[in-house]
Amino acid sequence: MIKVGIVGGTGYTGVELLRLLAVHPGVQLTAITSRKEDGLPVADMFPSLRGRVDIAFSAPDKADLTKCDVVFFATPHGVAMAQAPALLAAGVKVIDLAADFRLKDQATFEQWYKIPHTCPELLEQAVYGLVELNREAVKGAKLIANPGCYPTTMQLGYYPLLKAGLIDAGNLIADCKSGVSGAGRKAEIATLFSESSDNFKAYGVSGHRHTPETVAQLQRYTDQPVDLVFTPHLVPMIRGMHSTLYGRLNREISNEELQALFEEQYKDSPFVDVMPFASHPETRSTRGSNMLRLALHRPNNGKTVIVLVVQDNLVKGAAGQAVQCMNLMFDQEESTGLNQIALLP
Amino acid sequence: MIKVGIVGGTGYTGVELLRLLAVHPGVQLTAITSRKEDGLPVADMFPSLRGRVDIAFSAPDKADLTKCDVVFFATPHGVAMAQAPALLAAGVKVIDLAADFRLKDQATFEQWYKIPHTCPELLEQAVYGLVELNREAVKGAKLIANPGCYPTTMQLGYYPLLKAGLIDAGNLIADCKSGVSGAGRKAEIATLFSESSDNFKAYGVSGHRHTPETVAQLQRYTDQPVDLVFTPHLVPMIRGMHSTLYGRLNREISNEELQALFEEQYKDSPFVDVMPFASHPETRSTRGSNMLRLALHRPNNGKTVIVLVVQDNLVKGAAGQAVQCMNLMFDQEESTGLNQIALLP
Amino acid sequence: MIKVGIVGGTGYTGVELLRLLAVHPGVQLTAITSRKEDGLPVADMFPSLRGRVDIAFSAPDKADLTKCDVVFFATPHGVAMAQAPALLAAGVKVIDLAADFRLKDQATFEQWYKIPHTCPELLEQAVYGLVELNREAVKGAKLIANPGCYPTTMQLGYYPLLKAGLIDAGNLIADCKSGVSGAGRKAEIATLFSESSDNFKAYGVSGHRHTPETVAQLQRYTDQPVDLVFTPHLVPMIRGMHSTLYGRLNREISNEELQALFEEQYKDSPFVDVMPFASHPETRSTRGSNMLRLALHRPNNGKTVIVLVVQDNLVKGAAGQAVQCMNLMFDQEESTGLNQIALLP
Amino acid sequence: MIKVGIVGGTGYTGVELLRLLAVHPGVQLTAITSRKEDGLPVADMFPSLRGRVDIAFSAPDKADLTKCDVVFFATPHGVAMAQAPALLAAGVKVIDLAADFRLKDQATFEQWYKIPHTCPELLEQAVYGLVELNREAVKGAKLIANPGCYPTTMQLGYYPLLKAGLIDAGNLIADCKSGVSGAGRKAEIATLFSESSDNFKAYGVSGHRHTPETVAQLQRYTDQPVDLVFTPHLVPMIRGMHSTLYGRLNREISNEELQALFEEQYKDSPFVDVMPFASHPETRSTRGSNMLRLALHRPNNGKTVIVLVVQDNLVKGAAGQAVQCMNLMFDQEESTGLNQIALLP
Repeated sequence: MIKVGIVGGTGYTGVELLRLLAVHPGVQLTAITSRKEDGLPVADMFPSLRGRVDIAFSAPDKADLTKCDVVFFATPHGVAMAQAPALLAAGVKVIDLAADFRLKDQATFEQWYKIPHTCPELLEQAVYGLVELNREAVKGAKLIANPGCYPTTMQLGYYPLLKAGLIDAGNLIADCKSGVSGAGRKAEIATLFSESSDNFKAYGVSGHRHTPETVAQLQRYTDQPVDLVFTPHLVPMIRGMHSTLYGRLNREISNEELQALFEEQYKDSPFVDVMPFASHPETRSTRGSNMLRLALHRPNNGKTVIVLVVQDNLVKGAAGQAVQCMNLMFDQEESTGLNQIALLP
Repeated sequence: MIKVGIVGGTGYTGVELLRLLAVHPGVQLTAITSRKEDGLPVADMFPSLRGRVDIAFSAPDKADLTKCDVVFFATPHGVAMAQAPALLAAGVKVIDLAADFRLKDQATFEQWYKIPHTCPELLEQAVYGLVELNREAVKGAKLIANPGCYPTTMQLGYYPLLKAGLIDAGNLIADCKSGVSGAGRKAEIATLFSESSDNFKAYGVSGHRHTPETVAQLQRYTDQPVDLVFTPHLVPMIRGMHSTLYGRLNREISNEELQALFEEQYKDSPFVDVMPFASHPETRSTRGSNMLRLALHRPNNGKTVIVLVVQDNLVKGAAGQAVQCMNLMFDQEESTGLNQIALLP
Repeated sequence: MIKVGIVGGTGYTGVELLRLLAVHPGVQLTAITSRKEDGLPVADMFPSLRGRVDIAFSAPDKADLTKCDVVFFATPHGVAMAQAPALLAAGVKVIDLAADFRLKDQATFEQWYKIPHTCPELLEQAVYGLVELNREAVKGAKLIANPGCYPTTMQLGYYPLLKAGLIDAGNLIADCKSGVSGAGRKAEIATLFSESSDNFKAYGVSGHRHTPETVAQLQRYTDQPVDLVFTPHLVPMIRGMHSTLYGRLNREISNEELQALFEEQYKDSPFVDVMPFASHPETRSTRGSNMLRLALHRPNNGKTVIVLVVQDNLVKGAAGQAVQCMNLMFDQEESTGLNQIALLP
Repeated sequence: MIKVGIVGGTGYTGVELLRLLAVHPGVQLTAITSRKEDGLPVADMFPSLRGRVDIAFSAPDKADLTKCDVVFFATPHGVAMAQAPALLAAGVKVIDLAADFRLKDQATFEQWYKIPHTCPELLEQAVYGLVELNREAVKGAKLIANPGCYPTTMQLGYYPLLKAGLIDAGNLIADCKSGVSGAGRKAEIATLFSESSDNFKAYGVSGHRHTPETVAQLQRYTDQPVDLVFTPHLVPMIRGMHSTLYGRLNREISNEELQALFEEQYKDSPFVDVMPFASHPETRSTRGSNMLRLALHRPNNGKTVIVLVVQDNLVKGAAGQAVQCMNLMFDQEESTGLNQIALLP
């Protein structure tokens, strides 16, 4: 059994990790920390876990995380970088669901996240945990930077096109929409029910932290400088993410070839579902599951190719992807504990 | 492996059965019928099942359901009674998720459902599938009448009080609220998003079919004539049911004794969670799971006791309860395949 | 023109007052205060008001509210009682949308609101602003206690029955449901979209501040001691309130007489709509309007009478009711500026 | 008083026309037709109109619409073209909220709408009712083709850029999102609450009728061939439309100049609100009002300009825009009866 610790289990990615790990046959939930909730049984905060998770939160200084085999950080940016070095030194593997190790370039990190990076020496060693594009590296990783939710959809959607050199990397437009849980479990007016229900808006249009992360990753697959316009929007739904990705084809290709390209790329990836050409994937078809679904469109058979990508932002976009990494790091089947079928309706 | 057939798999209870049965370790999904969708792969209608359910709908006359061990009817009222006799005669067990066998009294059935009952001789043999109150009978059943969603909450909430003779059976008020999926997957204006979102209303206040079903069952546990006022309401949420049950205590009892009464009653029932006294259960704490949660209140320590009951109307209120019955009928653990943790948030 | 000031205009009742007053033909919006937002144009916080309200928030100490004819307090409990004495002394009328003057009994106030009352001498003078039951008193009032949202529905629903001595005042059950805006515009986790969407729950079942307010008012209309069980619930919708009121008839009466009783009672009240017997009013039929709609039911023609009452909690339940009072206090038509038709769908 | 008739008042644009016209000071509601609902009081179908609209639906053959000064068609495509010629001949002005007269080119109409056009001779005479770009023509019009909801946002957003020759007309990407009421009040499974709540999807990505309408109109303002990729999405909200419009700048221009261009263009248009540069307009800021709001963005000060446009699809996108046209056609102030402030929250 893999002994698992969770740092910061009071947010949405934390409770989602608990939901997944509680039914994972190879995991023993060992410790979960929270500065504020020391002593509170986890199931008192999240009644959905009553009878299923029987441990309590413990204060960070009381929990001996070095007894764990792996520790997940479901914390705000900056926490993992403070604790990861000691854990790694003690032989504990680390999976950070925040951004501390997503950017290889320290300066870029500090520019976007406005905090100094306290262990830049780990940046090179950290493996970007997008399993579908990085499977072998993940298997051998000791420190995982779990991808952002938006970047997951953008990379899996654009990758086959960029790698094949089919689209103009200098003119990418990603119009993305996320459910409100992406904003986290924080007391803020903007994400109150009465503010975000029956409403739709864009946010961060002039600049969002997921742009540099995505550009850095996409740049690995093309020599042409990547120019990405990324526009996030807030959808009045709890979970779900829908990315509408636009690319300009730079040479002729048939729709059948396009479709085959994607199907071939992801044929061994259990969590990427390439739907029939011209389908319209719905976010709810992934609700609560680790599946990402995508479909290709080509309006008027013109120069623009559209990739529609959906996922559950808390599962494939966060906690599920982290467990997927853990499975590989500990020689388990990639899909162990991740076979939940989406809740529809 | 239990060979399972489903009649009428295109509605919400049908797709929910599929979601549950697809991960049930003891089940082989053998046939699913639909008059309209003959030949259509199930996963084409419900993309959430892509890669997980690979059979197609077949027309009723093409599917040989007598090869099944058990057949679920996820159909409108009236279908099961037409097909059950032949299946039972062929040794196939039947679980009807509609109302055909819920009422023992033929006249009452025909009064409320406005159709003649075509096999009244089966009414006595049918077992009412509320496992928590009927466990032994379910184990030996060949024909199950799966309880209605509202009646499940009302019976499990009122039962301990009625059986103990603590409340006035002649003055029961059940103010119940259901998510919109309870209305089924039918093209109707009243349940359009634009009609039922951001809105709340009562319906059927002057009379609802679940009243006679509930009264008939509750009457089994008390000699006093049961008088129940049942008021259903429609909540702008997909899944979830919340029943607020009012009873008038007819003798003094402490809150501790009340709480103990419920805890004792349900201590061996894995799908009834008696929460701490004065808790406020939320429907989302059961979303997608087969758990029913309840809590007791006693405003001002007065004569009125309130039982708050929540469940997922499609799981414990329909498909999950049916699978729970199937497990017992086939000597499986009661909770096999039903360990999904509620999706929260 | 009535010169109007608003104290605390950054919450939902505040912005709703602005929406109504901005189109009121007899009003000049003179000052709006906010401690935190001094200098911020109101329309910067609420873009819905761009081009329609051009004043800015001012700090409380900068705004000379004594120049106003009337000041609305859209503030937390405790603010109005601190400022009302000076305003009244200066000849300014005061309408408090919070609870400071709703309870005549100081001890009861202090027990439920946990703060000392600083001007108990004003309690007797304060007029409870439920126009339909208090019209003449409101016309002559200088200090209005605007009723709570739930109490408005309970009083208008129970009043005709109690006054006619038709129901047992010692056995009232009010099962009430409110949209989330009733919780105000405060940064709290419990009312985040991801917490309260697709969810339903009761709250405050063991005791809620609106119980003593309602009981005290209802007691005015009957000699029998009033015993009210009030159970509030939270509905995943922004606006809207639905109260399901149960009463036990203590003598025989026909449904026609019941209906006539209500129609007669409210025939001169422009904002109470008595719908046909056995109707099911929907909250959306009042969305954004000052109308309260109600309908009577009598299940099985038995002893229980049910009154279904709906309103927009921010309009008839708060800001609209306050403007209705203002109109009468300043010799305007009761409905001036309140003719918005509900937004449906 | 303008005598107004409405054909087909049972859909969402119909009830929205009624909401607006019932408070319009210059209008007398004269007749409203419905084939199915002959004799039914309008307020029985839409309780929000109780006490405010007292006419009943009448069958088309009973209503003498030639007594009206203007008739609105809130009908499916194809109805207005059948009845308009006779009404026009009788001197009645016609405003069609459907698509019958939106396309000047008969062949294009028939290709996209799959029905023959029965009065192509009226196509030239019909005035496209986008007041902001067509004000003088609307004033003199006898037959108005009320614009589609999506095309309204796309035209008002792109117009200043195209007219100034600032963007590449051959590379327009409009990523648009609509509330569910845009699908109309029709009994269909896809728009049930349980299907479209807590969900997000694109639809019609490979081709949508609003593309040819928008392209034809935009082409009027540029010599370069317009190539528009238009991607509609469905948002789980009742009302509201958000268009995210992307254009590639073909020459350098400062953000201040861009902003000034839009402010100048719309300075005399009471229903277009140019918000500060880099704002994020929310759909709710227009809910129930005739206002369209837009804001400009320029990510990284690069080559891509983004125009964010929001409106209420049923008001500025349909019924409000139609009333706006009517006002001009009958020499009323453009904003008469259209001063509703958006409902926020």
